[in-house]
Parts: sequence; structure tokens; C-alpha cells
Amino acid sequence: MTKKIKPSRRAFVLSAIATGGTLVTSKATKATTADDPAITEMQPWSSELGDGVDASPYGIPSEFESHVIRRNVPWLTADATSSVNFTPLHALDGTITPNGLCFERHHGGVAVIDPQKYRLMVNGLVSQNTIFNISDLMRFPRINKLYFLECAANSGMEWRGAQLNGCQFTHGMIHNVLYTGVKLKDILKEVGLKSTAKWVLAEGADSSAMTRSIPIEKALDDCIIAFKMNGESLRPEQGYPMRLVVPGWEGNMWIKWIRRLEIGDKPWHHREETSKYTDLFKDGNARRFSWEMDAKSVITNPSPQAPILHGKGPMVVTGVAWSGRGKISHVDVSIDGGVSWNQAKLSGPADTKSMHRFYYEFEWQGQQLLLQSRAQDDTGYVQPTKDQLRSVRGENSIYHNNGIQTWAIDKNGIAENVEVS
Amino acid sequence: MTKKIKPSRRAFVLSAIATGGTLVTSKATKATTADDPAITEMQPWSSELGDGVDASPYGIPSEFESHVIRRNVPWLTADATSSVNFTPLHALDGTITPNGLCFERHHGGVAVIDPQKYRLMVNGLVSQNTIFNISDLMRFPRINKLYFLECAANSGMEWRGAQLNGCQFTHGMIHNVLYTGVKLKDILKEVGLKSTAKWVLAEGADSSAMTRSIPIEKALDDCIIAFKMNGESLRPEQGYPMRLVVPGWEGNMWIKWIRRLEIGDKPWHHREETSKYTDLFKDGNARRFSWEMDAKSVITNPSPQAPILHGKGPMVVTGVAWSGRGKISHVDVSIDGGVSWNQAKLSGPADTKSMHRFYYEFEWQGQQLLLQSRAQDDTGYVQPTKDQLRSVRGENSIYHNNGIQTWAIDKNGIAENVEVS
Repeated sequence: MTKKIKPSRRAFVLSAIATGGTLVTSKATKATTADDPAITEMQPWSSELGDGVDASPYGIPSEFESHVIRRNVPWLTADATSSVNFTPLHALDGTITPNGLCFERHHGGVAVIDPQKYRLMVNGLVSQNTIFNISDLMRFPRINKLYFLECAANSGMEWRGAQLNGCQFTHGMIHNVLYTGVKLKDILKEVGLKSTAKWVLAEGADSSAMTRSIPIEKALDDCIIAFKMNGESLRPEQGYPMRLVVPGWEGNMWIKWIRRLEIGDKPWHHREETSKYTDLFKDGNARRFSWEMDAKSVITNPSPQAPILHGKGPMVVTGVAWSGRGKISHVDVSIDGGVSWNQAKLSGPADTKSMHRFYYEFEWQGQQLLLQSRAQDDTGYVQPTKDQLRSVRGENSIYHNNGIQTWAIDKNGIAENVEVS
Repeated sequence: MTKKIKPSRRAFVLSAIATGGTLVTSKATKATTADDPAITEMQPWSSELGDGVDASPYGIPSEFESHVIRRNVPWLTADATSSVNFTPLHALDGTITPNGLCFERHHGGVAVIDPQKYRLMVNGLVSQNTIFNISDLMRFPRINKLYFLECAANSGMEWRGAQLNGCQFTHGMIHNVLYTGVKLKDILKEVGLKSTAKWVLAEGADSSAMTRSIPIEKALDDCIIAFKMNGESLRPEQGYPMRLVVPGWEGNMWIKWIRRLEIGDKPWHHREETSKYTDLFKDGNARRFSWEMDAKSVITNPSPQAPILHGKGPMVVTGVAWSGRGKISHVDVSIDGGVSWNQAKLSGPADTKSMHRFYYEFEWQGQQLLLQSRAQDDTGYVQPTKDQLRSVRGENSIYHNNGIQTWAIDKNGIAENVEVS
């Protein structure tokens, strides 16, 4: 291995690991000791009645999973009402993000909307300005689609080198949810678009009145007004009772608590599409619109928050991959920092513009590892290295960092965020 | 319409409707009144900052969804520790059951297991009796599969006629979850099956020590030892930290909190496969084993707990369908009690032995409806009427009632559980 390694610049103490006591590694591959008290002693859960069905009308996770939570980074933003809570990717598996752990990003805190008073207005270049209530919206044909939502700023802190020690923080501004909703195109057809209609302004009902301009072609393609996530009503922090779903495009455009759609003939150039969510280049120019989220992946286990807990021998490396331009066709995993690559297996329900789960199984000899994953989508696009991205974009960017992530694993199974070049 | 209608024999007061105040029907198809206070008045969620990201490390549903909960039927069982909490199917959409709302059935209450002390023992007709801890199990290759789990007793109270007024109670002993786990066959291969191995006894660590006999062919086919549901760790009431998944077979066999797998050469005939979970026929004989759950469906909206909330015109009928023998190939919906049938659309991720979502869109003229759905699976099997089932099985059965369900809808949109013949 001839890779040059730069460790993370900023140590980030992870309370899950600092307090969790799960860092002890074991050389035993099977706990077949005859005197194991977990076997020889009667456990209370086998000898005493547990709670009955009246105890949990709405169920919650085990007390032993209390460390599996969304986490924020207090120094990242000025105030918690305009901040981010990151998905604990390292503690999840499969392709669904459970609703309680979906990353959240607000600009004026969580709007708590009474559904009886919820209204969606459509105005502008339409035949008939129209206001819908929830019951009206439920009369349109419904669809169900699995889509990832990624913040454009996901991994944004890594432009200048390895910063944060855990995939929850480097890649946790993403979730993958089964949405139920109605097609935006059916609503626009109902109100009647004028021939001059070229853009849609989507506006939220929260106190920041979040607004983004969306080209009419996208609105008429696959956008959804969604009311369910993973089977149940949207969570308040995800836009209850209604949000806009803009498949494959940056999360900031997926307007939550959506209250208004204005139809116009040009983009509005609101704050969130001028001073923010634009890409600053080396020469000081900024790219105005970069909506699609390019193919990306990250290994979630092992990773800094989830060290290897067993000894040498068979092990499973897993992670997630996604592309805003289509399906993931292929994921490769490297254990030597990109010198050689091995094809990973994809598993579980996944579709275009949704997260995919991958696994790579190998025999760990107890050696140091430089773990990387590299995703390819069905357009043929291959996830680039961070250095390749920087050669084009410089280091002034915040958004759209889809470079290959590296975790260094030591011989005790402990992982760290590093850069290789 | 020449159908004879028998209304439900037992009125069941639904607290959700009795207290929810959502029964008012509206003739308005769009709320486009200029003086609508929901439009003309500034709402607090648009004018005041909401909670920040530090408020909810693990998110919960909106306060306005507090009626969407699992519910039990206190008179159904002697004690809440050996009872059922039903999934609110009428309040869900899509194909995923969210973890907090998955129906639960216990025989000794919820076992609360410390994962550090969790062990799985495999013994009997094997080359090597073996005990695995969680870390050991995580080293096997993982798979992700979407499967329904239905209690054999689901709809059991309906054998003698329409009883309970809501699909939560008539059909709510089911959920549909994305499981992540390891193949049981890989574990059995690791311990080495002897040539005489024909049956697996699966035993739970709860205080009821739930045990069921499973033929080795099924164990080596598609059974899973699962540790995640819908992305996160199993919930305590669903077997945390490990449960057995027995795709397509009755839920009682999906042993939760699984602690032991004994390999033998014949079934054990334990309590839960002799005195219970057998099918009593007219002549007093009982069918010993009936593992597979046959094709079944139910309309979830409209239904007694979810009346029509809008006037005449376009409306969406929706429901769920599943089969323990394969994929759902076709669902028909009738609005006239089975006189005529209309093909419904299937939507959302679904696979063999998983729940499917269907929709049927039509123009409601405000007439009375007799709503039915009828599922067909890819073996060609068609869901029977309840009378067809009774002609074979009599009325002494409790389990495996997959007959067609009827909801009578009156001109105000109110639904009731009825039987037609």
C-alpha cells in the first residue's frame, strides 16, 4: 500500500462511543464457553411477565438503542432553529430510513400545522387560481415511490480535508423514504397551465417561508405532493401534513409544509437560490443552479462510530449508494485505499433516485484497512475522488461534494476519517 | 343490487371516531372561499419560530395524529400480557407498516433483552452444538426482504358473521416490514446438519418460551434470523434483538426473542401447534398444520373508521392485498357487493410474500356502496367469499379466515361492516 494518509483535522468526540461501552473487541468468533453467565443464569426476560399490549399504543425503540439518535453539531450553525440533525447511518441497515431517524434541516424551526386549517394555493399563470384542502388533495390518484432526499450540503465540511469522525456527520444529511402522494402534474392539469408557464415557485408555510424555483419540466415529470412517509403521515419535521418531493434533486427544493405553488415564466431568484445553494468556484464565479445530486456512496460499517467488534475471519462491510440521475448499477469496495476494487452485492428494494444497500464480504486478516466505496449509476457516471472534484471546483464550495470517502481501520478494528492521495 | 345485507352483530364504539371530530362530511370539492379563515388569517406556524433540531433526537408523529395508534380489544383476551394490539390499517397508505404501528401479539408480555447478554443456541442433530452472540451473527452474509406477517387468527372473529366495525380490528393483525438479517440456512450450514435432520424447533426467550416446529425444507428455503426492521433495530415487541422470519407462514411461527434452534427428526407437538393454531372442522376433527397464509385483501379507505370526507365526484378507494404463496398478480374492486368487478392498480414496492397496495379510482354519484376487494396471487388462487370458506370449514374455526370483506357505505359516506350473500 503506497497511499499517503491525512487523518481528520478536527477530532469530534462521539458520545455514543464515549459512553456506550461497545468498543471492546473480541477475538472469539463464537461465544461457546460452558460457563458463559448469559447461558448458565436464568435471565429476567425469561422468568417474568413483560409489559402487555396496553403499554405502547405507539411503539418506540428498545432502551438499549438509546444511543441511536439523530445528532446535531452545535458549532455548525448559529441557532438550533436553523440547523441540521443528522441520520445515524452507521446504526442502520437495509434501504429504508425509519421516520424517527430521518435527518432534518430547518430554516425557522419545525412548523406545527393543524391539518384542518391546512390549505394549498396554486396561482399565477393558470386558468383558475385554486385552493385545495387535504380532503381535496386526497381525491387525486395516488402513487408510492421510494426516493432519497439529500441536502446539497451533505459532506460539505469535507471539501478542505477529512473533518468529522463518523458517517453520521460526513454523510448523514440524507434519508430514504417510501412516499405516498399525488402527482404535481395532476394538480397543475386540474388548475390549467397557461402556455407561458415555465417555472413553479414552491413556498413553505413555516416561519422562514422557504421558497425555491423549479422548472416546469421537472414539475410535470416526477414531482409529488406527498402526505405519507413509510406508511404513516409525514412527521412534523418533514413537512406535515404535505411536502413537495423533487426526486433526485437537492433537498432544499423539497419544500416542506407546502402552502403555495405560483406558476410563472422565469425563476424568482429568492435568497435560497442565490446567496445559498449555489456553487462557488476557484475564480470567484458561482454556478447558479445545480439541482441534481450526483452518484455517491459511503461505507456505514465499519466506520468511526461503528468499529469492528469481532476478531479476524469472516466479516461484512456494508454501506449505501444513490444517484439523483437514475439507478445505481454497480458499487465497488476497496480495502486498500483505491489500489484494487471488488464488486459489492446490492440488496433490498431500490429504484431510480433511491438509496441502495451494498455488502462486501471478505476474510479479515487483522491488517490495517483503507476502506472506500465507489458508486456507478445507470447513466455510466462513476463517483469521483475528492481530489478529482477539487481539481474542477477548488476548495471554496460547500455544496455537492460527492467524492469517495475513506475510513482507515486499525488492527484493533477502530476506524478514522482520513484522506488518501 | 340484489344482495342481502347482514349488518355487524356487535357494535364496537371506535374512540377514534367518537372523539376525533373528523366525521363531518363536506360537499365542497375545493375550499376556494374568499373568506376562509385558514387563508385570510395569519397562522402561528407561519409567524413564529418552531422547535429547533435539539428538540427531537428521535422523532415522533404530529400531535394531530394522536388517534393513529395500535388498539387492543380488552374483552378479546383474559390479560393484556397475552393479547393483541391491532395495526391501524385505515390510517396508513403505501406498502410499509411503520415500526411504531406494527401489530403485536404476546403470550407472556414483551421480553426486554439486554443485547450484550443475548445468545442463540443451536443444538440437536448437528455436527457441533453452537452458541452465537450478536457479533457472531453479524458476520454472516446479510439479506433484505419485504415480507408481511399475518397472525393466523386475523379476521378470526368474523367466521360467524360481521362482528367488528373497522379494518383495524377485522384485519389489523398484519404488518409489512423490510427485514435485514442472515439466512437461517447459512447458520444451519455453519453448525452442520446431520442426515436425519427433518425439523427445527424454534424457541423464544420470553416468559412464555414460545415454541414452534418448522420443517427443515422451509428452514433451508427462505427463513431469516432478522435484526433490523425498516432500517433500525427490531422493536422490543417485535423480538429485539433477534427474531425468526418465516415468509408467508402464520405469524405465530415467527418466533420473537429467538434463543434456541433445536434440530430433530419429527415435530414436537408443543402447545401452540396442538391446542392452538389448528383448524377445527364441522365434524370435530382438526387440521393439524396449516402454515401458509392464503391470498387475502381488504379495503382500508373508505372503511368504518375512515368515512368518505368529501362529496360526490372523483374518489380513491384503496386497500392492501397479500399472499403467503407468492406475489399478488391482480386485485379487483366491487362497489356493488360482488355483482360486478373492476381491476385495481397496484402501486409501490412489493415482492413475493409481501403486502401490496391497490387503488381504484371512480366517480362517486353519492349512492350507497357495497365495497369489496378480491385478490389473486401468481399461483392462480383467487380469494374466496366467506360463504365459500364456511361451506368447507363450518363456523367453528378461529384461524385462516381469508374471505372477502364487505363495507356498506351510505349516502353520507359512513361505512359499516356487513355480510352480503
